[in-house]
Amino acid sequence: MQLVCPRAVLSAAFTVVGAVVPSRTPREILKNVKLDAVASGPGATSSAQLTGTDGDGTSIRFDLTDVECKVGGSALLPTQRLTSILRELTDDTVSLEVNGDAVWLRCGGSEFRLSAEDPADFPTAPEFVEEDYFVVPADVFRRLIKRTLFATDAESTRYALGGVLVEISADQVRMAATDSRRLAVAVGTCSVEGQPVSGSQQPVVPSKAMSLIEKSLGDEATNVCLAIHTNDISIRAGRASITTQLVQGRFPDYRKVIPSRYEAEIDLIASTFLSAVRQSQVVTNEESRGVDFTFAEGTLRLASKAADIGQSKIELPIGYQGSELTIRFDPRFVGDFLRVLEGSSTVHLKLINDESPGVFTTDDDYTYVIMPLSRDS
Amino acid sequence: MQLVCPRAVLSAAFTVVGAVVPSRTPREILKNVKLDAVASGPGATSSAQLTGTDGDGTSIRFDLTDVECKVGGSALLPTQRLTSILRELTDDTVSLEVNGDAVWLRCGGSEFRLSAEDPADFPTAPEFVEEDYFVVPADVFRRLIKRTLFATDAESTRYALGGVLVEISADQVRMAATDSRRLAVAVGTCSVEGQPVSGSQQPVVPSKAMSLIEKSLGDEATNVCLAIHTNDISIRAGRASITTQLVQGRFPDYRKVIPSRYEAEIDLIASTFLSAVRQSQVVTNEESRGVDFTFAEGTLRLASKAADIGQSKIELPIGYQGSELTIRFDPRFVGDFLRVLEGSSTVHLKLINDESPGVFTTDDDYTYVIMPLSRDS
Repeated sequence: MQLVCPRAVLSAAFTVVGAVVPSRTPREILKNVKLDAVASGPGATSSAQLTGTDGDGTSIRFDLTDVECKVGGSALLPTQRLTSILRELTDDTVSLEVNGDAVWLRCGGSEFRLSAEDPADFPTAPEFVEEDYFVVPADVFRRLIKRTLFATDAESTRYALGGVLVEISADQVRMAATDSRRLAVAVGTCSVEGQPVSGSQQPVVPSKAMSLIEKSLGDEATNVCLAIHTNDISIRAGRASITTQLVQGRFPDYRKVIPSRYEAEIDLIASTFLSAVRQSQVVTNEESRGVDFTFAEGTLRLASKAADIGQSKIELPIGYQGSELTIRFDPRFVGDFLRVLEGSSTVHLKLINDESPGVFTTDDDYTYVIMPLSRDS
Repeated sequence: MQLVCPRAVLSAAFTVVGAVVPSRTPREILKNVKLDAVASGPGATSSAQLTGTDGDGTSIRFDLTDVECKVGGSALLPTQRLTSILRELTDDTVSLEVNGDAVWLRCGGSEFRLSAEDPADFPTAPEFVEEDYFVVPADVFRRLIKRTLFATDAESTRYALGGVLVEISADQVRMAATDSRRLAVAVGTCSVEGQPVSGSQQPVVPSKAMSLIEKSLGDEATNVCLAIHTNDISIRAGRASITTQLVQGRFPDYRKVIPSRYEAEIDLIASTFLSAVRQSQVVTNEESRGVDFTFAEGTLRLASKAADIGQSKIELPIGYQGSELTIRFDPRFVGDFLRVLEGSSTVHLKLINDESPGVFTTDDDYTYVIMPLSRDS
C-alpha cells in the first residue's frame, strides 16, 4: 500500500476513530485501527477508510478525504503510537507505505518505521448503506445528547439505564435517560429518507456509543442519519459510519414519573439559580448531601448543613407568590441540569409537595425530573 | 472579629496562602489558614493578614488590602472549604465575623457558618522586617525559577539536590539545579538594599518553596527581596512574606561539570529543534530511552529505535560544517530545556565527543548540561 494525504485529515480521523479503540483489551489486535485504501483507476479516484472497534459491539468507519493512493491495500496501525506521532509532526503532507509487516510513515524530514500486525485478523466495520433512515440535524442531535447523556446509569442491572433511549418518528426525536433518581427528556425535530421504521421497540444506545457519535460530528456534519434495527443501530454522521449494539433489557416507563398537575410553578434564571445551588453544595458531604429549597413569597432560600463543616443559607429573589413550600434535592442533580443550559435561559420548576418529584422544564422542550430526598434526617 | 473586604482580594490571598497548606498532615490544625485583623483607630487604618504553613519549615504571610475592620482579632479558616466557597460567590464584597468557635461569612444573599478551631494553637509566620537584603526584579526571578526548577531531584540523599542553589552578590544572582544527569544554571541581575550578606555558604531553597514564591509574585510584585540566613531564607514578594528552611547538605561543585573547551559548536532554533526531539521521543520506551543525535555537514539527524515499536529518523538542516559526530541523549532532558525557551531563541550546542557532557547555552546567560547516554547498547 502507498498513500499520501494531508496530515490534518489523518489526524482528525485518528482522533475520532481512536475514541472507540479500547486502551485495555484481552484482544491486543483491537488496539490498532485498520486502514483500507483503493488506488485510483480509470474513471475512479483514490479512496481510503480508517476503521476501529471496541470489541464490545461498537465499531466506526471513517472516510479520509483528499487522499492519493498509488497502490491499494490494507494495514493495521498502532493507534496510540500513530496518534502521538501525528501530534508531533509539523509538515502538511503525510505518506504511508506498507511493506510486509512494516509501516513506513514519512512527513517532511521525518521517517518512522513501525511494525504492524496482519490486517486480515481485524474485524470489519460495515459502511452505512441504508436506504430508509431517519435524519436528525447535527445541532439537534448534539443538543439532545448533551441534555440526556449525563443522566444515564452504567451500573444498573435491573433496567437498561446504561444508555439513552431514542424514540423517533417521522418528525420528532425524543431522547430520555435516567438513573432512577432523576430523569432527563429532550425533544427535537427530524425528518425521514425513504420509509424507515424503528426495528426495536425501545432502542437504547449505549452511553459510550453516544459520546462517540457526538465526537464524530465534528464541525462538518450537518445531519445524523439513523437506521434502527432489532438489536443494533447504524448511524452516518459526516464522514463517519457507526454501528453499535443496543442496550439489552427494558427501559422504565418514564412517562409515568412525570406528574400531570402541580401545586406551584416558579420561574428561575439558569445562571443565578446555578450559582446559588453551587454555593449551597459546598456545605454538603456524603452523609448530608441534601439542600433544602424553600420557596416563599418573593424569595428562594437554599439551606444546607453538614457535621464538621457548618451550615449555609443562600437567598435569591424570585417572582413566586404562592404559599411556602420546602423540598430537599441533591444539589448535584440540580446542577447537572442547569449546567447544560444557556445561562440566560428561563427554567420553570413545577412542584406538588416535598415528597413528589420536582419537574424542571425549559421553553425548548426539555424536561428534567428529580426525586426529592427525605427531610426526616 | 469583624472584617469587610473585596471578595477578589480574599480570593487571591487564599490562592497564594492555600498553596503552602498541606492536604495531608498529622497536625489537622495546619489545614487551616489564620486570619489576623487589626481594627482602625485614631491615625491608623485597618489591616489584616492571612498566614499558612506546611509544618515542614515553610510559612507564608499575605497582607490583605482594602480591608475595613471594625473589631480586631484572629480566626482559623478551613482552607479548602473557604476556597470552594469563595470560588462560588458572585457579589463583590465579603464580610467575616468570628463569634466564639464559629466563623460567619456573608456575601450578597449568601451566609455561611463554619466551625473554627482555636487560633492560639496555630504557629506564627514572621513578617519580613529585614534592613539588609538583596533585590531581584520579579521578572528576572520568575525566569530563573522557570529555567532551573525542573532540573531538581527530590529523591537524592547523597547531595542537596531537592532545591535550587541561589548564589547571589551585589549585582548578580545565579540559580543552579541538577539531578546529577543534567544541570541547569541561569543568571540574572540584582541589586542590594543596605549591606546584605549571604549567611549560608550554599543556600539551597526547597523546590516547593520556590514554586510558592513564584505563585506569590502574581501580577503586582515588581521585586523579590531576599535575606539569607544560616539555616533559612526570608523573602518578600509583593504582599507576601515567605520564610523557608534551607535544604541541608552539600550541593555538588557544578562548575566542574561544565567543560571549558569544545570540539564542535552548533546553532539551533529552539522550536524546530524541540519539534524534532519530540518526534524522535515517540519511538522510545523505558528500555530504550536514548536518541542518537548525529551532527553532519548541513544536517542534524535524530535516530531512535525501540523493540515492539519500531524506529524513527528525523532530519533537519543546520549550519554545521565540522566533522560528523554522534551523541546519545535522553530526549526528555533536551525537551525540558527547550520548552522553557521562547520558540524563536537560538540555542548554541557545544560538544567534545560522545562521552563528554553536551552544553546548551543561550544568549541570555542560560547554561544547560546533559550527560550523554552510553551508545554500547
